[in-house]
Amino acid sequence: MRRTSKERLTEKLACFGRFGADERGGITRLSLSPAALEACGEFRRRCECLGLAVRCDDMGNIYAVKRGTEDLPGPAMGSHADSVVNGGNYDGMLGVLAALEVLETMVLDGISTRRPVSAVIWTNEEGVRFPPAMMSSGVLTGKFDKAAVLDVRDADGVSFGEALSAAGRQGDKAARLGPESCTAYLELHIEQGPVLYESGESIGVVQGVVGMCNYTVSVFGRAGHAGSTPMPRRRDALYAAAGIIRRLHDDLGSIAGGPLFTFGHIECRPNMHTIIPEEVSFSLDARHRDPDVVRRVVEVITSLPKESDGCRVEYREEWARRSTLFDPALTALVKRNADALGYAGRFMFSGPGHDAQYVQDMLPAAMIFVPSIGGLSHCPDEKTSLDDCRNGTDVLLNTVLELADT
Amino acid sequence: MRRTSKERLTEKLACFGRFGADERGGITRLSLSPAALEACGEFRRRCECLGLAVRCDDMGNIYAVKRGTEDLPGPAMGSHADSVVNGGNYDGMLGVLAALEVLETMVLDGISTRRPVSAVIWTNEEGVRFPPAMMSSGVLTGKFDKAAVLDVRDADGVSFGEALSAAGRQGDKAARLGPESCTAYLELHIEQGPVLYESGESIGVVQGVVGMCNYTVSVFGRAGHAGSTPMPRRRDALYAAAGIIRRLHDDLGSIAGGPLFTFGHIECRPNMHTIIPEEVSFSLDARHRDPDVVRRVVEVITSLPKESDGCRVEYREEWARRSTLFDPALTALVKRNADALGYAGRFMFSGPGHDAQYVQDMLPAAMIFVPSIGGLSHCPDEKTSLDDCRNGTDVLLNTVLELADT
Repeated sequence: MRRTSKERLTEKLACFGRFGADERGGITRLSLSPAALEACGEFRRRCECLGLAVRCDDMGNIYAVKRGTEDLPGPAMGSHADSVVNGGNYDGMLGVLAALEVLETMVLDGISTRRPVSAVIWTNEEGVRFPPAMMSSGVLTGKFDKAAVLDVRDADGVSFGEALSAAGRQGDKAARLGPESCTAYLELHIEQGPVLYESGESIGVVQGVVGMCNYTVSVFGRAGHAGSTPMPRRRDALYAAAGIIRRLHDDLGSIAGGPLFTFGHIECRPNMHTIIPEEVSFSLDARHRDPDVVRRVVEVITSLPKESDGCRVEYREEWARRSTLFDPALTALVKRNADALGYAGRFMFSGPGHDAQYVQDMLPAAMIFVPSIGGLSHCPDEKTSLDDCRNGTDVLLNTVLELADT
Repeated sequence: MRRTSKERLTEKLACFGRFGADERGGITRLSLSPAALEACGEFRRRCECLGLAVRCDDMGNIYAVKRGTEDLPGPAMGSHADSVVNGGNYDGMLGVLAALEVLETMVLDGISTRRPVSAVIWTNEEGVRFPPAMMSSGVLTGKFDKAAVLDVRDADGVSFGEALSAAGRQGDKAARLGPESCTAYLELHIEQGPVLYESGESIGVVQGVVGMCNYTVSVFGRAGHAGSTPMPRRRDALYAAAGIIRRLHDDLGSIAGGPLFTFGHIECRPNMHTIIPEEVSFSLDARHRDPDVVRRVVEVITSLPKESDGCRVEYREEWARRSTLFDPALTALVKRNADALGYAGRFMFSGPGHDAQYVQDMLPAAMIFVPSIGGLSHCPDEKTSLDDCRNGTDVLLNTVLELADT
């Protein structure tokens, strides 16, 4: 079995961790921001130093290709370089740097393959600056309309299309990853949960991504002055919303199968301490691998009362995602290589969404998870041990080499 | 008894209602904003047309003076011209226009008095753009440090001092209203509550302003990815905060005497639908005329558990205000005039704070309330019937004339 270099990987993580380092000790590297462009520029520069051909497609996705001995389609690997606000340096970036380390290992160790091997950086996976998440892989696989997403604007009114061309990242549509150029896609990523960390295993072989639904619940009360509106005739949207959040939480928590659900976003209008809240909206994100469990979640939401504490209650489905199953042969190959390398591993599902699940719709895809210390992610304390980073990269290397020579 | 003109008052309300009219059908006239400066400019222009001397003090408060036959201190009346975001055109502005109508009536009806009569517009009563509320009357009466409030910045980073001088409103400290120039202060204001509207009475004689306290409660959980953090080990700050809001609401609601309390402002960090809330803070505003009731509110807050649903809970007192009692002789005079005019009235307390309560600390003050239709305020539907506006202004006129001739 081949091995990658923990020392080189350590250097890469340290170097790329400077791009977007924020004052709160985390990483803020929103898609196409100066920090993200710096990181992508450094990736390009390093690939070119390795003598690799680098190109960009029309969604700004970056591809670095190491040619094979024959002009055939070959395997690709990668992840994303953007982060959430005040997130960590491993979500996405580790998969990018692992792919770079694999190519670097091939070049430095003089490994040639029959098929080409590519590394890819997906544009705007997090969808924080430009919603939705996984925007570019979604366009390549027909999930989203290209014209529509190019017109999505950030908080400053800059459209995704404007940001793309300002960054010089609007390449050629012909450069897109697809079945004609690519035989399989592999993505290494941190688990973003505690399962591997607590089991002491180094490798998660991801069989699929759980299905999910996302709702906005809105509660409409009546504004009034805090100092003069008698309590009995108030219609306080925040008081009502708080009750709904508690009830939904308890009802959803009692669903057999144990869905994951989160009320992560809340907005209050006018949100002034001297005014009774008139309107409160909050988000509900729920996930489970079993479609029946997701269906029961939806039943709980759709049976919300039309009125609560004197306030009108509405709910709206923002989007839903069916469960994705990765290519069984590919996941089996990943598991074999983890075993052959002597790394403890297990099959598991991913709760978070990843570009790989969209890619799976057009060609065989699979994911390799490595442990998140304490299960933390999307926060400054997000971390994966360097041994685990290297172990995952070793699995990625050997799997890609096998795919590139068949 | 003298009378003011409903027709002129109608015209004034219509004209000044254009300054800050927003797209949501309300008024947004933040302190020292272009809309507020337009309104104050129109007030100055109209006073100068009436031949009145207009001056400005060092806090931007505007005074229009109608001289008396003798060079003595005299009564003043007024209110504020700034509004909340998407508020109404009666809160504050009605008191300003009533004072203008009183002066206009005196000029047009050729009424001369022994003492001078002044109208005043207080700068930044709402405190929305530049906290705290009642900033300028607070500085004149030693509640706030002038240097500190001049340095308060709005959301765009503009300081109150910069906004003052940009508006050319930094006048002379010697121009301030005070005991040497003023014998009594009267403020006409909408009730901002339903008491007068529901009792069908036209005039509220305000005996004082209730005491209040304002707290921020903060709940600290742990961030984590919505798709991968198992439910049992979550520390969800929003779920915990929702429970605390419900419990506090119910506990405060059971306090004998019936304090008014409002959770009007809530903030969630990082407030993203895919991340478990790490920190949620909300405001608590509580008011009652009886200091013992306010004390029991504080007892409920200070007995909050240190931990709730696995999250750390903290509370911080932002500020507190003792009950204010207006000058009994002045309130009695107001009531006598309301009765003499044949307007149904009652003694009552104010829940909201007003500049008059600070003025009361340096000279006799009192307030005249007129009904708020439906008890609504701080919203586009805020309204007072023109008859009630005129009735209140009649009471103001006759009270001021009596004060100006004694």
